[in-house]
Amino acid sequence: MTGTLRVLGLGPGQADWITPEASRELAAASDIVGYQAYVSRLTVRSDQNVHASDNGDELARARHALELAAGGAQVAVVSGGDPGVFAMAAAVFEAIDHGPPGWRELDVAVLPGVTAMLAAAARLGAPLGADFCAINLSDNLKPWSVIEQRLALAVQADFIIALYNPASKARPEQVHKAFAVLRAAVSGDRVVAFAAAVGRKDESLHVTTLANADPGRADMRTLILIGSSGTRLVERSSGTPFVYSSRRWSGAER
Amino acid sequence: MTGTLRVLGLGPGQADWITPEASRELAAASDIVGYQAYVSRLTVRSDQNVHASDNGDELARARHALELAAGGAQVAVVSGGDPGVFAMAAAVFEAIDHGPPGWRELDVAVLPGVTAMLAAAARLGAPLGADFCAINLSDNLKPWSVIEQRLALAVQADFIIALYNPASKARPEQVHKAFAVLRAAVSGDRVVAFAAAVGRKDESLHVTTLANADPGRADMRTLILIGSSGTRLVERSSGTPFVYSSRRWSGAER
Repeated sequence: MTGTLRVLGLGPGQADWITPEASRELAAASDIVGYQAYVSRLTVRSDQNVHASDNGDELARARHALELAAGGAQVAVVSGGDPGVFAMAAAVFEAIDHGPPGWRELDVAVLPGVTAMLAAAARLGAPLGADFCAINLSDNLKPWSVIEQRLALAVQADFIIALYNPASKARPEQVHKAFAVLRAAVSGDRVVAFAAAVGRKDESLHVTTLANADPGRADMRTLILIGSSGTRLVERSSGTPFVYSSRRWSGAER
Repeated sequence: MTGTLRVLGLGPGQADWITPEASRELAAASDIVGYQAYVSRLTVRSDQNVHASDNGDELARARHALELAAGGAQVAVVSGGDPGVFAMAAAVFEAIDHGPPGWRELDVAVLPGVTAMLAAAARLGAPLGADFCAINLSDNLKPWSVIEQRLALAVQADFIIALYNPASKARPEQVHKAFAVLRAAVSGDRVVAFAAAVGRKDESLHVTTLANADPGRADMRTLILIGSSGTRLVERSSGTPFVYSSRRWSGAER
């Protein structure tokens, strides 16, 4: 049987955010490869082989998946969110690029999913309603100076900014440095939202301003959204205010 | 009965990219509001009221949906893709912001979906594997000068760039102007991909370079991806090459 490899995302946490396509391909897989935290969300059948790992070496995981597919297995590589956004898909193609020529001819496909910033935005209202960018705050694969420069250019462009992987136990300080860059560039009334564990039981949303934000509340399950000059709050008598970004450019702060 | 309003996305075109949550809320709606082209993709029951419009006045459509919800209806507002990305959600909150105070207390929720750039990226490989931005090329709601400045800053930041709404019958020239900005800023070997009608029968992918790209091939159903300095091709003996962006920053062109 010819092997196949499907790279798919489980969404940010809520089961009914997984696309029917991804569910179908998961069910068709003979082998499931992924980080332990994602694999543990799945209901696996006894005829499916699970290859869960708890280390962060994505390239090694990708190579393992490709070896299984080259050997004839129907492989599903699982990520959280969308597999193409700071997740496994890029590692799979990097492995193919630097691997044996035969890997290029394998039947490989990526299945799109709901990435964390879309789920966080939906819970808040419509903060991504105008031009935006997504920045991975981890400096494992790029120098911190590049991240600081991107943040500065992003506020200059007046993008709404989604910050992925803002902090971890190994990197507690960078989110503080990132906020220092932002605070030096735009006024303190800029809307800031912390969306943690979106779509899970312990989901929490916190809407504040750049001046009042405590970057220390971010952890590895938090997505941070920094508003543009056009991001507004709609207060309600109960609950978190709605956050949205005006579709119409206002010219403020430029 | 208390009214509700759900803003949901149908994904970029493939039926199995609609989340189960969105399908469930669509089935529960008494009233469905949306642009004709999206509503026509639905199978509507005879007990559901359909309010389809063929004009581009999103704010008027949002107000209509809110009036229905305020009157007690279970309203689903449908968009393509993800409702929060250049779609109906921001218009709904803009309408609430400037509407009667009672609208703020309505049961309003946005349901995340698969936005076009994620589907286009998945078909191509993993071009969004590093920091990226999304820019709406339409100047209906912002001056063209702002768009040109954002493009220039985005390449300076070395973001992968997703261009939404690159062209329409009323705006055929802007995508040419956008490419002129890009060509002035980065070298001609930059990877460029045109993804048209992704997830539909007439889907087409075209991978080229900035030097060789013909911006005129873009229409209103096309999403354009402009690679960063780290975006690579993996050639195959058959089919479109895989496109991916290296997770590791290489420092090229900076």
